[in-house]
Amino acid sequence: MQLSDRLKRLGTETAFAISEQAAKWASQGNKVYPFHLGDLNIPTPGNVVEAATKAIADGKTGYAPPAGIAPLREALARDIGGRRGVTYEPENISVQPGGKPLISKFISAVMNPGHEVLYPNPGYPIYESQIEFQGGVAVPYGYVQTKEGFAIDMDRLFRSITDRTAILIYNNYQNPISAESSEEEMRILAELAVERDLWVLSDEVYFEIRYGGKPQSIVALPGMLERTVILYTFSKKFAMTGWRLGAGIGPEKVIKVITKLNTNHESCSNHFIQWAMVDGLNGDQSGPERILEILKERRDAAVDALNGIDGIDVALPNSTFYLFPNVTSVMERKGFTDIDELQTEALHETGVSFCTRNHFGRPLADEQDFYIRLAYSGIDVENIEEGLGRLKEYFEA
Amino acid sequence: MQLSDRLKRLGTETAFAISEQAAKWASQGNKVYPFHLGDLNIPTPGNVVEAATKAIADGKTGYAPPAGIAPLREALARDIGGRRGVTYEPENISVQPGGKPLISKFISAVMNPGHEVLYPNPGYPIYESQIEFQGGVAVPYGYVQTKEGFAIDMDRLFRSITDRTAILIYNNYQNPISAESSEEEMRILAELAVERDLWVLSDEVYFEIRYGGKPQSIVALPGMLERTVILYTFSKKFAMTGWRLGAGIGPEKVIKVITKLNTNHESCSNHFIQWAMVDGLNGDQSGPERILEILKERRDAAVDALNGIDGIDVALPNSTFYLFPNVTSVMERKGFTDIDELQTEALHETGVSFCTRNHFGRPLADEQDFYIRLAYSGIDVENIEEGLGRLKEYFEA
Repeated sequence: MQLSDRLKRLGTETAFAISEQAAKWASQGNKVYPFHLGDLNIPTPGNVVEAATKAIADGKTGYAPPAGIAPLREALARDIGGRRGVTYEPENISVQPGGKPLISKFISAVMNPGHEVLYPNPGYPIYESQIEFQGGVAVPYGYVQTKEGFAIDMDRLFRSITDRTAILIYNNYQNPISAESSEEEMRILAELAVERDLWVLSDEVYFEIRYGGKPQSIVALPGMLERTVILYTFSKKFAMTGWRLGAGIGPEKVIKVITKLNTNHESCSNHFIQWAMVDGLNGDQSGPERILEILKERRDAAVDALNGIDGIDVALPNSTFYLFPNVTSVMERKGFTDIDELQTEALHETGVSFCTRNHFGRPLADEQDFYIRLAYSGIDVENIEEGLGRLKEYFEA
Repeated sequence: MQLSDRLKRLGTETAFAISEQAAKWASQGNKVYPFHLGDLNIPTPGNVVEAATKAIADGKTGYAPPAGIAPLREALARDIGGRRGVTYEPENISVQPGGKPLISKFISAVMNPGHEVLYPNPGYPIYESQIEFQGGVAVPYGYVQTKEGFAIDMDRLFRSITDRTAILIYNNYQNPISAESSEEEMRILAELAVERDLWVLSDEVYFEIRYGGKPQSIVALPGMLERTVILYTFSKKFAMTGWRLGAGIGPEKVIKVITKLNTNHESCSNHFIQWAMVDGLNGDQSGPERILEILKERRDAAVDALNGIDGIDVALPNSTFYLFPNVTSVMERKGFTDIDELQTEALHETGVSFCTRNHFGRPLADEQDFYIRLAYSGIDVENIEEGLGRLKEYFEA
């Protein structure tokens, strides 16, 4: 009566340990500045809440179809296709209980054991975990720091390709580093995917968390529509991470099997929340607009405060709600060689809680620099300034 | 760019095809009597709805812990342990987005490829699907019809045991056949599990859908607490199938890895619904009591009507909301040899929509009799009587 062998290959999100550490520190009477959470301390828009309440009253409390209710699939096809300049039909949509469920389902649907999967690292840690759990080979590609932020390390990526490379996981508007592709970078990736006949998972969780300009999706490039599955979530745009609703969007043949996995795993996603999000997509947009305004103010405050710290120089990102400062000179000044020691001491000395590079995939062998990740989605401007003021004192001491 | 090979082993719930067939028939202007659905046409209790609305207003809209919020884990430990006469702690509870997600996670957590898994057939079709999808060998055990209903075919079960048998899936208060174990049957299964050192998944979805008497759980028998994971759902008791909330309850070491699978698959279950169900478990119980009263009236009406049909003799079940009449003599009278043809003609001739034995796992080689499954959870007494009156005319013609 043992646990299964496959669990040896199962990873997790180690960032949850930081949440626990911060909660413990707070419970001992200390003020904590929560920069570790990719969560929002902003209410879900009122019209969404009202639409959910109305849907319950209307009896939308029984099972929904495994792929989602027709009006939501229609609204998503129109909204997601429209924003990306491509055409989707309801048959291209599989509603999910969050964005994350699509990662394991996509991998189940297209990856065989032994397949090599290119994935971003630093990146969302569940990619690595699910590739390996399901018997694939996780092949990380890294990033290089640039004046504007970060760019994909294309040399490494191209060197990693073999005959077994089957899938590219791509997360433009990237967690944790806020990277966004240049036109050229995206074009090269698309050409690679077509040439090598790869499936692509395009994680577009932060596609609409943009502070200016029009976002671009790789799905709009030649040859991509038929090989790309988009990971979509309502969580960030509508400040509703805890409601759990998202979707997968892609070619009908893969969406069909992803929906068959819904039938196996969850039956369906919450019924009345699906009705609420029809209103969320088609109704009043002032809620999401206001959320973006709040996040933009926080971004500006956090970037200003970080750049006021001696030895830190962080570019102003145009998307996501994460900052990924290089703290190598701070590490040298303070005599640390383990980034997690800096993280723990910073919490205890200043109350500022953040994640490090180590929470976003296994570090690559040749990494030289040290990075931390600060999220500004769960902390207001006043506490951003107060907390980063305390961090400055500590980092500069 | 192919779909994965593992999809060849993925099953589904074919009952969804019956829903589609019934919806199509209704859309052509025909009255349909929906006996095919294991869903409830009864509103979720008002106090649960109010508690959910309040939790949203209280800002319970961000991420919850992957294992569930502490107050719900405490309430579930007390409620589930108390009703079964065993002691559970919050560490024994992993909240899930429904009962179903536990099936695939339990199998991931304890089954290795090549393991043989004993499972009920006819039974919930996802057992068979997930055992095979994850590389195990699905070994069905069947039932024999008795005066009181059905009993497990113990001869077949014991004959099926080999050195590779690792898991027993047990669904007392059974879907689709409403079987419930005698004391002796349950004791023999528990002794077998202990002797062969098996993991047990005890699917207790209908544990509280009982019309009299105290339900019994196998978990309370000697040696079972440490090897059994209970599948629990709020769906039926609270008429909230579309809300999607359930839990796994078991030994801490397996609950920990099931929660790690939550982190990988869904992050967490809906946050505000978890708060609502703390109230559901600890607050006013008149809602679930009323739901049971309604179901009992329907059960009595449906059993009376079915037993009024020449050639049908169905026992009065004390649990679930399913009836599983033997229709062998009806098949002979009408000249059918394929039960699915009877199902389709009955829909077209009478509007009565039901599932057949074929929707609940691959039929066993030596089955002689024909069965259909009628659910009375989604249809009121007036339509039960009207529909089954029409069915009587058709079956007797």
